[in-house]
Amino acid sequence: MREVVVLGVGMTPFGVHSAPLRELFAAAALEALAGSGVEGREVEALFVGQCLGAFEEGQLNLAPFLAAELGLPASAPATRFEGACASATVAIRHGALMVAAGVHDLVICGGVERATAMDTELATTTFAMASHADHEGPAGLTFPGVFGLAAHLYAAKHSLPLPELKAAMARVAVKNHAQALHNPLAQFRKEITVEQVLSGPMIADPLQLLDCCPFSDGAAAVVVAAAERFRDRMKVPVFLAGLGQGSAGSLLAQKDFTKSPARRASIKEAYRQAGIGPGEVDVCELHDCFTIAEIIASEALGFFEDGQGAAGVMRGETGMGGRIPINPSGGLKAKGHPIGATGAAQVYEIVRQLRGECGPRQVEGARIGVVDTLGGDLSTVCNLVLRRG
Amino acid sequence: MREVVVLGVGMTPFGVHSAPLRELFAAAALEALAGSGVEGREVEALFVGQCLGAFEEGQLNLAPFLAAELGLPASAPATRFEGACASATVAIRHGALMVAAGVHDLVICGGVERATAMDTELATTTFAMASHADHEGPAGLTFPGVFGLAAHLYAAKHSLPLPELKAAMARVAVKNHAQALHNPLAQFRKEITVEQVLSGPMIADPLQLLDCCPFSDGAAAVVVAAAERFRDRMKVPVFLAGLGQGSAGSLLAQKDFTKSPARRASIKEAYRQAGIGPGEVDVCELHDCFTIAEIIASEALGFFEDGQGAAGVMRGETGMGGRIPINPSGGLKAKGHPIGATGAAQVYEIVRQLRGECGPRQVEGARIGVVDTLGGDLSTVCNLVLRRG
Repeated sequence: MREVVVLGVGMTPFGVHSAPLRELFAAAALEALAGSGVEGREVEALFVGQCLGAFEEGQLNLAPFLAAELGLPASAPATRFEGACASATVAIRHGALMVAAGVHDLVICGGVERATAMDTELATTTFAMASHADHEGPAGLTFPGVFGLAAHLYAAKHSLPLPELKAAMARVAVKNHAQALHNPLAQFRKEITVEQVLSGPMIADPLQLLDCCPFSDGAAAVVVAAAERFRDRMKVPVFLAGLGQGSAGSLLAQKDFTKSPARRASIKEAYRQAGIGPGEVDVCELHDCFTIAEIIASEALGFFEDGQGAAGVMRGETGMGGRIPINPSGGLKAKGHPIGATGAAQVYEIVRQLRGECGPRQVEGARIGVVDTLGGDLSTVCNLVLRRG
Repeated sequence: MREVVVLGVGMTPFGVHSAPLRELFAAAALEALAGSGVEGREVEALFVGQCLGAFEEGQLNLAPFLAAELGLPASAPATRFEGACASATVAIRHGALMVAAGVHDLVICGGVERATAMDTELATTTFAMASHADHEGPAGLTFPGVFGLAAHLYAAKHSLPLPELKAAMARVAVKNHAQALHNPLAQFRKEITVEQVLSGPMIADPLQLLDCCPFSDGAAAVVVAAAERFRDRMKVPVFLAGLGQGSAGSLLAQKDFTKSPARRASIKEAYRQAGIGPGEVDVCELHDCFTIAEIIASEALGFFEDGQGAAGVMRGETGMGGRIPINPSGGLKAKGHPIGATGAAQVYEIVRQLRGECGPRQVEGARIGVVDTLGGDLSTVCNLVLRRG
């Protein structure tokens, strides 16, 4: 397989947008194309993650319309991927595989979503569609419920008193909000305190309001290319060195949600392809849809032993300047979570970190970064390892 | 790139089903696996086309649940593709590319859809979402309208009196219904006459009821494998020899709908990869969502000169025993059109034709077959060339 290089990245601010999906994606994609020094007519394929366009604006088969918006030729396949919140990461993985395999030399990948214009009932209903429609949906199990259960399970398994776990969860929220202060594209740029988290409204015990990421609109895009042809264009080349994707059935089939079989398979493959272990990772953007999710992920990705993630947060090991800085962008929690775009925004952040372009939120000297994205209740997990050349 | 062989195929009857998408797909997929002599735990990835599951049964992120149903391991990526009515063909193309590229040796691909349980308003609304949400949807342009306009355009361009064109369109419907009589999985197995077509209710001038395919439920699946490892398992190996996919923007951007730029790019690439021209094709399953669509496609795929497709139908050249038999399965028109499954059912038919398993609807001695599937108003077109070894 050939080496795959990221030429350019682009991203809209995350938050509230009124532009249609096509225009929102085009804003991110045109930035990525400009940064790559290529034009739409040179691009050989488009891979886009998108979840809820049918509900948001009555649009299916979005991908070819995005391609037309960017001026791609008729010969460029344009394909939409839907893997719930992992949609964009799955799209980027497929785009990178096509380049690695020699099918294409130059592709654009990314994701786009709008959720804020939907009323709360529709948003809650459609988000819950990513869980199992027979085993979970009818039980009223929405995602705050799923991750609330995960927090209780984590505390019980590791004999951690719930107040101790909640303190660590609150610390995750405080950390990610603090990091988002330095991200001009983040949805929330305001500092919060542990006290504010712990005094917030209860959403799904033990998750309180500030343990939860928001509904968001936004887009992000990544131009991916064959290194043998395009490497010299980049002052600081960043390679997609490991591409993992795993799958699992409903929560009932997964047995222990905190040890997701899909995530273990996915990250193992991504590390194997990149020829690294978790100890070599300098920076990570992971799926902190809820604060407990960051703690569980930090263990599943191998940064902490099982049951040690909460303590690691309390020791500051996942903050800026820590052993493994997690979510310098602010994460889903504070940067925002436009679900079909999230994975592309994670790649955007890692690429800019590895290029050393992140200013006050820069992880100094970062050479290897990891992306981790979940779809549904860990039914789909996609991991990417990126490396600075 | 490596040779890609089809190991097994499976398909449910098309028509009305009450089983959920997971069970419907599993019925087709388990047949395909059994015919391949492999078990789910050996399969390395799943690629599924699916359109309307969020509306049909509140299910997003369907792919990993399908994988779990079939016993695939956690290491198997399971990915949903949505390209409107071309979803399954796009999924199969990506699965075949992954095998060709050496990413996987053994994958299952296919599609599944249920539309009959939706009321007419919801079905009409959701189907129309595959057109451009700004330029077409708000104008009330549903797909019967799009293809009605195409019929008028075709008649005007080729100075063909509309009654002549309508006679040829009726002949397409009669032919495909007659062919479906011999397909036990077809939704409609009843003969119709030209008089019945021409006296039916008007749907979108000049399309009458029997010019239109139905709403349908169903699933189909295809096991695709690396020929270097699996070829010897097959008594009659069938290869995926050409894989094309093209894209275009809204109707306004396409200029002449009867000469779709996406389809021309897609079929050109599929023929190029297979190293053949249209004159070498023995059998074709193409996208006859409306009778006029079959006539237009028969020209775009190169079986007739522009403007000669209608006359070709009248001469019987596209019927059984004709120069290029089209839609021996009965096509979307009579076999049925569960949109996310249609492409996989087209592949199912071509594989069985090339294996010589089609009994009374067998195209004698068929060695090369073509699949043609449209998504939306030809925004996505996907073509596959299959060859008997």
